[in-house]
Amino acid sequence: MALRVDVNGERLWRSINEINEIGATPAGGVRRLALTDDDRLARDVFVDWCRGAGCEVSVDRIGNLFARREGRDPSRAPVLLGSHLDTQPTGGRFDGIYGVLAGLEVLRTLDDHDVVTEAPIEVAVWTNEEGARFAPAMLGSGVFAGVFSLEEGLGATDPDGITLGDELVRTGFAGEVPLGGRALDAYLELHIEQGPVLEADGLTIGVVEGVLGIRWYDITLDGQEAHAGPTPMGPRRDALLGAARLVEVAHAVALAHTPEGRATVGVIEARPGSRNTVPGHVSLSVDLRHPDPEVLATMDGELHDRATEAAEALGLVLAIEPIWYSPPVAFDPALVDAIEAAAAGLGLPSRRMVSGAGHDACYLAQVAPTAMIFIPCAGGLSHNEAETIESAHATAGAQVLLRAALARAGA
Amino acid sequence: MALRVDVNGERLWRSINEINEIGATPAGGVRRLALTDDDRLARDVFVDWCRGAGCEVSVDRIGNLFARREGRDPSRAPVLLGSHLDTQPTGGRFDGIYGVLAGLEVLRTLDDHDVVTEAPIEVAVWTNEEGARFAPAMLGSGVFAGVFSLEEGLGATDPDGITLGDELVRTGFAGEVPLGGRALDAYLELHIEQGPVLEADGLTIGVVEGVLGIRWYDITLDGQEAHAGPTPMGPRRDALLGAARLVEVAHAVALAHTPEGRATVGVIEARPGSRNTVPGHVSLSVDLRHPDPEVLATMDGELHDRATEAAEALGLVLAIEPIWYSPPVAFDPALVDAIEAAAAGLGLPSRRMVSGAGHDACYLAQVAPTAMIFIPCAGGLSHNEAETIESAHATAGAQVLLRAALARAGA
Repeated sequence: MALRVDVNGERLWRSINEINEIGATPAGGVRRLALTDDDRLARDVFVDWCRGAGCEVSVDRIGNLFARREGRDPSRAPVLLGSHLDTQPTGGRFDGIYGVLAGLEVLRTLDDHDVVTEAPIEVAVWTNEEGARFAPAMLGSGVFAGVFSLEEGLGATDPDGITLGDELVRTGFAGEVPLGGRALDAYLELHIEQGPVLEADGLTIGVVEGVLGIRWYDITLDGQEAHAGPTPMGPRRDALLGAARLVEVAHAVALAHTPEGRATVGVIEARPGSRNTVPGHVSLSVDLRHPDPEVLATMDGELHDRATEAAEALGLVLAIEPIWYSPPVAFDPALVDAIEAAAAGLGLPSRRMVSGAGHDACYLAQVAPTAMIFIPCAGGLSHNEAETIESAHATAGAQVLLRAALARAGA
Repeated sequence: MALRVDVNGERLWRSINEINEIGATPAGGVRRLALTDDDRLARDVFVDWCRGAGCEVSVDRIGNLFARREGRDPSRAPVLLGSHLDTQPTGGRFDGIYGVLAGLEVLRTLDDHDVVTEAPIEVAVWTNEEGARFAPAMLGSGVFAGVFSLEEGLGATDPDGITLGDELVRTGFAGEVPLGGRALDAYLELHIEQGPVLEADGLTIGVVEGVLGIRWYDITLDGQEAHAGPTPMGPRRDALLGAARLVEVAHAVALAHTPEGRATVGVIEARPGSRNTVPGHVSLSVDLRHPDPEVLATMDGELHDRATEAAEALGLVLAIEPIWYSPPVAFDPALVDAIEAAAAGLGLPSRRMVSGAGHDACYLAQVAPTAMIFIPCAGGLSHNEAETIESAHATAGAQVLLRAALARAGA
């Protein structure tokens, strides 16, 4: 029989509120950019709390924190839980923070009940997940997983030219532990969904099977600037009309691959940007996503073909520059099953889903069996000071995390 | 029999080149913003040239210049020719300048041949036509015609907070002549077309019957910001997709009223403007034009109806704010006939057309029988340093202006 212990949801909720006093914004959100003084304070609080729960805390060379609760067999590979404490410039109170503090709640619960697991359990805080201060995002987990070199990570600079390496030294988080290179039994990341699906479906738990692949494009359309008055419609080569058709094309490409296909035009700029001048030049971004790499490649082809057709029909010069490709990530099937079983065992309604957003788990999946757990967030709102969740969902997610971790670590 | 004298096309072309040395830009255009030192220099040159052609020059209280060649009967209302010498920040060498110097060429030609007309002939330089330094555009002619008060005109400020009135004093063009209030026999404005029609039709002269009415709108669409990844296509309320459809709607509204209907979206801004966020807010401008006020009203209704339908289909909140209405202007039929006859008499191929752009003639039409003459410009390009015309067309236009002026003034 599996051990039956329950997390303390009230303590978890209080901890979330307490840590979010650091960097709290007047609008009810959090601004705690990576390795600022506020991020240091939050990390210090986390370290104190972990030590209070009987854990040892170590810091690796890119500043990732690991709070370790020893197992009966210290030679066994640990079960790793984790997420991040840094936020967007006008971030919410749960993105990342929830996963870290739910991990801590798992440690505290085990401590409360003097449970000793077979394998060690660790909780990680990954450095600079948001990428809002230092590019790229998911930097700490990326260096941990060997996706980026340590030199790349330490050399990342913020908009003021300050390096991440210097900020690690300044904040006291330039650790000595070598990066990665050790076996992990599993990596489990609990996170808010940041999308509307669970709420719309009335479900409590998302069992995350993988992460959408992403293709990013910079597109330009060139036509001919012309006066709005003297130029009849016929001879116009209107770059903004072309851009309008490209927005429709991108939308249609995603709709042709529902429900998982996504297409977003988030940035558009028309020049010269004058009320009575037909735009001669428009630039726009396109973001295509799908969990299946072959379908994503098909979407790429469709975007090219249909955009070319639309531009040619208007006499416009089209340039499509693919600027980034992040392949889809498939999580570990056994771990996904374990999460689903944990939710079922707790009587929590769940569904399998893919994550549309990137997470540290994407990189961890390269070095350990990995899966994620989602809980609903109100209106799917995230990266927003109004981001919020229900405390009952917070408790439920932590409970699933605890059960899945125990199933893996053995108790 | 009408008097047969010909303009000196070579002198006209040389004068255009000479005056455009003032404010010449490296890219071959002109930057001569209203009442700057360069504008003052150009005005001084114009005044010298007019006096050299035996004219008296007066300045009214908003700085409009009038070079008068006396008629046999000084009590007769003068025939007024004119345009402007100020330019866009990166303007061309012919917009406005051509009409003023062609008027001067008419005066010089009459002087060469000692022609005395029955009515006086005057050439006007209107202050701040472009509106690039002081808003609104066509300020000098608007104050002359009583559309704006003198106080409004003098109080107009440039981006540095300097008033037009102060600049008139500084440049020596704060004249004493009262505004308007005198009878004009006719106002004739010769201008480059600033559109592609004459060139495309292989014609030399545009006989301008009127000016398109203009309706300007500020439109906003509000949806819901959402993450590009976690948000499926279905639940999105994408303000930029709505904006793309509004661009199509505006385009379709114009096409339903070809050939004269025009619709332009020149400005678009999507917020938050992030590559991986579905835009929650988009603002855009719409410019609708038509020469028939009833058709323009119909277009207004169609824009509202179809935009509302498009926004509702996407769950977006639409706000359409009409910010300006400039009614269509119909020029004086007899004067239009006189221009057409003058072109025919010279064997110059012509067509009747409407002006898509505003000109000083729009305001003069409120106080005098008014019409305009267009000549082709290369590629329809204007408000651009690359703006250019053929010297043969310049000569032909001035010749039509001379004939029409003589027909009116009597010789």
